[in-house]
Amino acid sequence: MSNDSPGGVDRMRVKRRGFLGGALFAGSAVIGGGLNRKVVSDAAAALPERPHKLGAPLSPYGTPSPHEKGVVRVPTELTPTKLSSWDFTPLQDLQGTITPNGLFFERNHGGVPAIDPKTHRLLIHGMVDNPRTFSLDDLKRYPPVSVIHFLECSGNGLTEWAKPTQKTVQLTHGLVSCVEWTGVKVSTILSDVGVKSGAAWILAEGADAAVMDRSIPLDKMMDDAILAYAQNGEALRPEQGYPLRLLLPGFEGNMNIKWLRQLKVGSQPFYTREETAKYTDLLGTGEARMFTFVMEAKSVITQPSGGMQIASQGSRPISGLAWSGRGKIMRVEVSTDGGKTWNVAQLQEPILSKSLTRFVYPWNWNGAEAVLQSRCYDETGYVQPALAELVKARGLNSVYHLNAIQSWHVASEGTVTNVHA
Amino acid sequence: MSNDSPGGVDRMRVKRRGFLGGALFAGSAVIGGGLNRKVVSDAAAALPERPHKLGAPLSPYGTPSPHEKGVVRVPTELTPTKLSSWDFTPLQDLQGTITPNGLFFERNHGGVPAIDPKTHRLLIHGMVDNPRTFSLDDLKRYPPVSVIHFLECSGNGLTEWAKPTQKTVQLTHGLVSCVEWTGVKVSTILSDVGVKSGAAWILAEGADAAVMDRSIPLDKMMDDAILAYAQNGEALRPEQGYPLRLLLPGFEGNMNIKWLRQLKVGSQPFYTREETAKYTDLLGTGEARMFTFVMEAKSVITQPSGGMQIASQGSRPISGLAWSGRGKIMRVEVSTDGGKTWNVAQLQEPILSKSLTRFVYPWNWNGAEAVLQSRCYDETGYVQPALAELVKARGLNSVYHLNAIQSWHVASEGTVTNVHA
Repeated sequence: MSNDSPGGVDRMRVKRRGFLGGALFAGSAVIGGGLNRKVVSDAAAALPERPHKLGAPLSPYGTPSPHEKGVVRVPTELTPTKLSSWDFTPLQDLQGTITPNGLFFERNHGGVPAIDPKTHRLLIHGMVDNPRTFSLDDLKRYPPVSVIHFLECSGNGLTEWAKPTQKTVQLTHGLVSCVEWTGVKVSTILSDVGVKSGAAWILAEGADAAVMDRSIPLDKMMDDAILAYAQNGEALRPEQGYPLRLLLPGFEGNMNIKWLRQLKVGSQPFYTREETAKYTDLLGTGEARMFTFVMEAKSVITQPSGGMQIASQGSRPISGLAWSGRGKIMRVEVSTDGGKTWNVAQLQEPILSKSLTRFVYPWNWNGAEAVLQSRCYDETGYVQPALAELVKARGLNSVYHLNAIQSWHVASEGTVTNVHA
Repeated sequence: MSNDSPGGVDRMRVKRRGFLGGALFAGSAVIGGGLNRKVVSDAAAALPERPHKLGAPLSPYGTPSPHEKGVVRVPTELTPTKLSSWDFTPLQDLQGTITPNGLFFERNHGGVPAIDPKTHRLLIHGMVDNPRTFSLDDLKRYPPVSVIHFLECSGNGLTEWAKPTQKTVQLTHGLVSCVEWTGVKVSTILSDVGVKSGAAWILAEGADAAVMDRSIPLDKMMDDAILAYAQNGEALRPEQGYPLRLLLPGFEGNMNIKWLRQLKVGSQPFYTREETAKYTDLLGTGEARMFTFVMEAKSVITQPSGGMQIASQGSRPISGLAWSGRGKIMRVEVSTDGGKTWNVAQLQEPILSKSLTRFVYPWNWNGAEAVLQSRCYDETGYVQPALAELVKARGLNSVYHLNAIQSWHVASEGTVTNVHA
């Protein structure tokens, strides 16, 4: 802490205590004369120092402050290497709803390919009238659309079904991010190539080493699917599919094929390995749910959250994120007593369909033990389930689609931990 | 261009020509059997190559593709160094409305200071009941708000009053950017410290070497001003005021004081050098406009724009940005004949107050000479003026607040240049 007067430190401490406890700071004189730039009060003596030499010059592409070096994606510990793996967005450090491009979570099945956008092509064929390849330039000759949508890995929270295993919200919920995407509507392109009668499914395939592929219902493709080439204004990041990915708003992340190189139109699902061996949900009955595309409504408190230490009593907003693959979030409730009572949180405008929505609930921590939870409702009337409800319906063999209420325990000393409550 | 078959290149050329000229691609066979993953048509032979080795691993903080290395901020040539200078956002390369943090334009008066957020303080004093200093932690104990707003330097376009001097939209209009800001409402903080009767202005001052300062009307501070500590989810970038800046939605950029270290409440303007010697508008009459806070409605076509070369005739969307410091954009019109006739462009949702709004107008270039213009209307009924109108009202001595219609000339060979038309 630096001040213009040696007494500044003590005064600031007094003032901080005043803020927390409600006491008034009594050391100031009224300052008269708006034209008088010289500051003479005691309070002014606490004016923070300013540098007396020039700062850093302009730079072509900015980067975060060195003081933010801890705000990074963290890889899972469940894979042996950082290839065919995933890492998590640091939700506990983020504000608002837009994820900065550098912190958008990663998931790949064969590493991040290095693709030259000049030579990359998308082939659209199968049950179409005019099979065609498209360069990026070709696609950019169609009217662009921009939309803000979340994207969530269906495996978000997969470690948390049976017991709380991860310490932070980054590791329990950080496989969700949200940006403004720009691209061309798939429906526009399909209208141009002409879809044949009887077509019902489209195979989407990536140009990565894993040749990641999934079957997408034609209805979804004709609804709001996008061939995306930009995120938050600039070109897609390499790990997000540069130069071209499929965006299926609200659908599980793995279907939003990155490094997209072909769309093949057919009459039935293609039953790829990714939708037969993987990305299905084994129920308690031994049956598996398949083609579970939509990410159902979910919410989580990000501040305060697991691993944090609440330093002192007093006012402290509870803030978090809610989202639904079926549309808009209509309501979020916050509980500080483990779900016994619920309070309506404030939702930040604009509330966009299939987008992260930030909620805030003003809390005044009195130093007592607490269990913090959030519960969201989407515009279809769906209510985010309790974990017990979800487990009752799905059993404990499922990997994907855990969207249950998250609980954070606050101990009387202020430690916040991940619990099942 | 790479393909799985040696004949692929020729076929692609045929197909591209087909796309541009409207001819159909005739070389494909109908593909039967959705379950058959083996692709046998001619079109399928054009399937783009995919890598047969693993790609790059996960990374803690992502960066753009090396192929995007030309998409950077460009400094002005009007200052002798990159200190006390500015650089421009590459609008011609950006999509949508959100500016990625690394490309947000820069403007500083004494370089970018390196500030430790742990020791940084904001002093609020003057005509208040309880003068106080706030740490970042203190501010984060108030409920956060997140809002998407543009920020524009009042000097945006200052070279363009008398004649067109800059080649690209980056250099004519790139002192505007738009992000999701998060912080605390100034009104919340002022309510807490208590503003004395008779207060009407607040001096805001930065902790940079230039000690940048401006007088802000109390009304604005109590309306929608924000003490911002985050942009697009993460902490402010150093060049945007890390760790704390004042955000005055719709007001000229220089008033949005970065590296904010004090707010001093007074009864009248403080008449700082920045609002007496600088940031005033000298009219043709010899009088100067002062306290010209609001950035009036403005729009510009970013694609195509100056310095681009349109490669071929055919469909090509005209796309650009519109914004108003007074609220929402209600309508944008596009002319391709230098303002003789106007066509209504499509506005992308959501249309947010004091935010960039993307407009798109589908254009089919027939190879003839053209002059492209856009004209916007905001919700107050204000219409973006022609340059001649603006010059008639303001003369040619003004530096700031050029918001006139921009013209791009398209030559018959496809070259796009900056003109006054």
